[in-house]
Amino acid sequence: MGRLFIAVIALLSVQFSNSQVTSVQEDSLNLRKIYDMSLMQGKSYDWLDHLSNEIGGRLSGSLNAQQAVEYTKAELEKLGLDKVWLQPVMVPKWTRGAREFAYVETEPGTTRNINICALGGSIATPDGGTKAEVIEVQGIEDLKLYGKEQIEGKIVFYNRPMRPDLIHTFEAYGGCVDQRYSGAKEAAKYGAVGVIVRSMNLRQDDLPHTGSMSYGDTPVENRIPAAAVSTNDAEYLSGLLKLDKDAEVYFKLNCEQHEDVQSYNVIGEITGSEHPEEIMVVGGHLDSWDLGDGSHDDGAGVVQSMEVLRLMKEINYKPKRTIRVVLFMNEENGLRGGNKYAEVAKEKGEKHIFALESDAGGFTPRGFAFDADKAQFAQIESWKPLFEPYLIHYFELGGSGADVRPLKEKEGDIVLAGLRPDSQRYFDHHHAANDTFEHVNKRELELGAATMTSLIYLVDKYGVRQIDTTPEDKY
Amino acid sequence: MGRLFIAVIALLSVQFSNSQVTSVQEDSLNLRKIYDMSLMQGKSYDWLDHLSNEIGGRLSGSLNAQQAVEYTKAELEKLGLDKVWLQPVMVPKWTRGAREFAYVETEPGTTRNINICALGGSIATPDGGTKAEVIEVQGIEDLKLYGKEQIEGKIVFYNRPMRPDLIHTFEAYGGCVDQRYSGAKEAAKYGAVGVIVRSMNLRQDDLPHTGSMSYGDTPVENRIPAAAVSTNDAEYLSGLLKLDKDAEVYFKLNCEQHEDVQSYNVIGEITGSEHPEEIMVVGGHLDSWDLGDGSHDDGAGVVQSMEVLRLMKEINYKPKRTIRVVLFMNEENGLRGGNKYAEVAKEKGEKHIFALESDAGGFTPRGFAFDADKAQFAQIESWKPLFEPYLIHYFELGGSGADVRPLKEKEGDIVLAGLRPDSQRYFDHHHAANDTFEHVNKRELELGAATMTSLIYLVDKYGVRQIDTTPEDKY
Repeated sequence: MGRLFIAVIALLSVQFSNSQVTSVQEDSLNLRKIYDMSLMQGKSYDWLDHLSNEIGGRLSGSLNAQQAVEYTKAELEKLGLDKVWLQPVMVPKWTRGAREFAYVETEPGTTRNINICALGGSIATPDGGTKAEVIEVQGIEDLKLYGKEQIEGKIVFYNRPMRPDLIHTFEAYGGCVDQRYSGAKEAAKYGAVGVIVRSMNLRQDDLPHTGSMSYGDTPVENRIPAAAVSTNDAEYLSGLLKLDKDAEVYFKLNCEQHEDVQSYNVIGEITGSEHPEEIMVVGGHLDSWDLGDGSHDDGAGVVQSMEVLRLMKEINYKPKRTIRVVLFMNEENGLRGGNKYAEVAKEKGEKHIFALESDAGGFTPRGFAFDADKAQFAQIESWKPLFEPYLIHYFELGGSGADVRPLKEKEGDIVLAGLRPDSQRYFDHHHAANDTFEHVNKRELELGAATMTSLIYLVDKYGVRQIDTTPEDKY
Repeated sequence: MGRLFIAVIALLSVQFSNSQVTSVQEDSLNLRKIYDMSLMQGKSYDWLDHLSNEIGGRLSGSLNAQQAVEYTKAELEKLGLDKVWLQPVMVPKWTRGAREFAYVETEPGTTRNINICALGGSIATPDGGTKAEVIEVQGIEDLKLYGKEQIEGKIVFYNRPMRPDLIHTFEAYGGCVDQRYSGAKEAAKYGAVGVIVRSMNLRQDDLPHTGSMSYGDTPVENRIPAAAVSTNDAEYLSGLLKLDKDAEVYFKLNCEQHEDVQSYNVIGEITGSEHPEEIMVVGGHLDSWDLGDGSHDDGAGVVQSMEVLRLMKEINYKPKRTIRVVLFMNEENGLRGGNKYAEVAKEKGEKHIFALESDAGGFTPRGFAFDADKAQFAQIESWKPLFEPYLIHYFELGGSGADVRPLKEKEGDIVLAGLRPDSQRYFDHHHAANDTFEHVNKRELELGAATMTSLIYLVDKYGVRQIDTTPEDKY
């Protein structure tokens, strides 16, 4: 097991009273087994290889998404779980159509192409495309400033960048994504004919990043097409507009919103031996955007979640509580799978005590965010020393994952958690054509799976503080 | 400055007594300035772009290495430091020559090429190449087991892999690298005609990884050529030998060891305003292997170290002590630069109190390793809370960097430190053709530079406990 391991046991042993030593030693040994199994005989990377390279991007309602449903169900069935099933859910279907195209024209015949892609949910441009002058804004609040007078008939160019000074890149994302999600809806109110949004990317490059947008209750006839532009071309366009405010942009989108179609959440379960009624969920989302193969977002979370149950079986751990892997459909453009799972759980009166989502990329895990009350969090924090040998240091309150959030009804009930991998490279790939298999590192993916399994193991063993239950065996 | 920053100030404020608040607030503000400057107006990535893409691999004694000396000296001169100079050092010169070539032959005419590269310091094969049967071993200790009888006239194939279960990948490296460094010297004693070593790589791929080796005092006539083979081809060869133990390997190396040549450490200094005699060093090594462009090893460390001094000036911090950036020559195959710097420091009676090296890749920084006594380490650990907002959690005793190590003569004198970035991907690139610029992420590099600058700032402000000094202003 090596020197490091022995040192860890020694370290842990002095941090707990004697009566607890046996339990801590057992936990320490079991975590070591989990990590060893994931790093030496892991399956997550092979599964991801198939999802990414044999299937590819898995947009809700697509054939690829259906293939992913069937593949993951079949793989879960091979694991010898107690149950594997599909949970039906109707999902929106949006198709990109033929590749998008755009250029900037400074004078007739003088054009330069720019790299764009339709935002998910956008309408197409008219058949001949949309061509208009451009007004650059730094956010939705600027629209009021310029007013209908300056906006009507133009393309609104949202160009507020992600803040590079924020260490948590998801915070930087949160500070910009309203431009993408609501930019078209808001610009339409001022008579804009289209919107182009700077890609949510911290890096300067040529890749446009898609993502969901919504027209809200905008009447169909008032909806305008919306596209993302690469960060390099956003800089180019901004610079050009300073020199020539009359420059026009032409863009052509061929996307289409269809009727909802039948799809599924994929679910597998190891039924608890002592408290089968207490359910712990571990999951990621099976759908992805269509530009890349969705390896980081969220193929990684899918295969890591499947690996949690496999590792439990491989180390011969028999959970006291029920562990469910849920591969949610349609996180990206609807959250129908997450909502459906919570809805069915409520209908059936199921008691979910814990849900962990991995949906922040397959990078080196740093820890977890929790949506929990103080007592619950204190209990979880007491497990931190067990994770230190694996360089897992981050246990923070606040945040979990979009698909598991609907399971929480009130403070103090279910504890939600989200794996927090290193986030510095995540938005280089997020929703773009380079979210692909070769950008996922095998060890980093496996470390994440082992880290998730370790947390689930501890929750299973010690329970979580609930308003109506008392955890047993707590340190 | 944002919510996060305010929360940090609040958090830090309650962790220290009131009299310390002003100082902690000032430090917290200064760290925030350092990180902001590095992430928003950093120079490290541009410098690395030049070193990697305009100059390229910088093997000691090569023209590229000399170009790197001149470029970094010129860039340091632009920063307005108090002094910039070159420190002469004679370095070994080894050239790879024409590309290596190897194949496995199972019967005459039935061959398959394998990916190899010469190890740094190896002799060439004879003009016609070396062809022989192969004996696979799991390490140097196996040689005794097989004895001269089974080894003489054969190529020894060292195939012990890096252990994937070790979380610290440098530990896994340390567990294998004797095969590369001493494998030829030891195999020659048993009459082997060459050695082939499995690349020090945790990933399965086709790239051979070079690195230094030594013949020790083996007489010239007994020296045998040594090459690394890719992990994929190591697996292939091992599998093949199980089926056909008479299979032969042919390999041809064209490398050559030349006379030592003149080279330089590049040094720049901001002279301390209060204690100019107390010197802090920050550095990386300017030389690299020749297969890639040396972006991670150690272009990253070079530009981060340069950035430390630039950031100090940009935030208008006037150090009390002297800060020197030292870009060491010849870490890879001789350590002449590190030894020379320490030798000259001793001759001049210079008092070095602290030395920090970055030589573990340009990945997201996790913290530092320190070579310090207990009291020194306790002082440094008291600074940990200042780093938490930047997700820097790892402060551990043990280890620093090869180039700064010669500065330490006895326990309790100079404190040595090494930046510890995330190490999971490092050996995918280490000493291989894919140690290139596109595998360095701008933000990760910049976070490392800011983390180093922050530590140097704190050491400057509070000093380090020394046998013959007492640090002032300690929390």
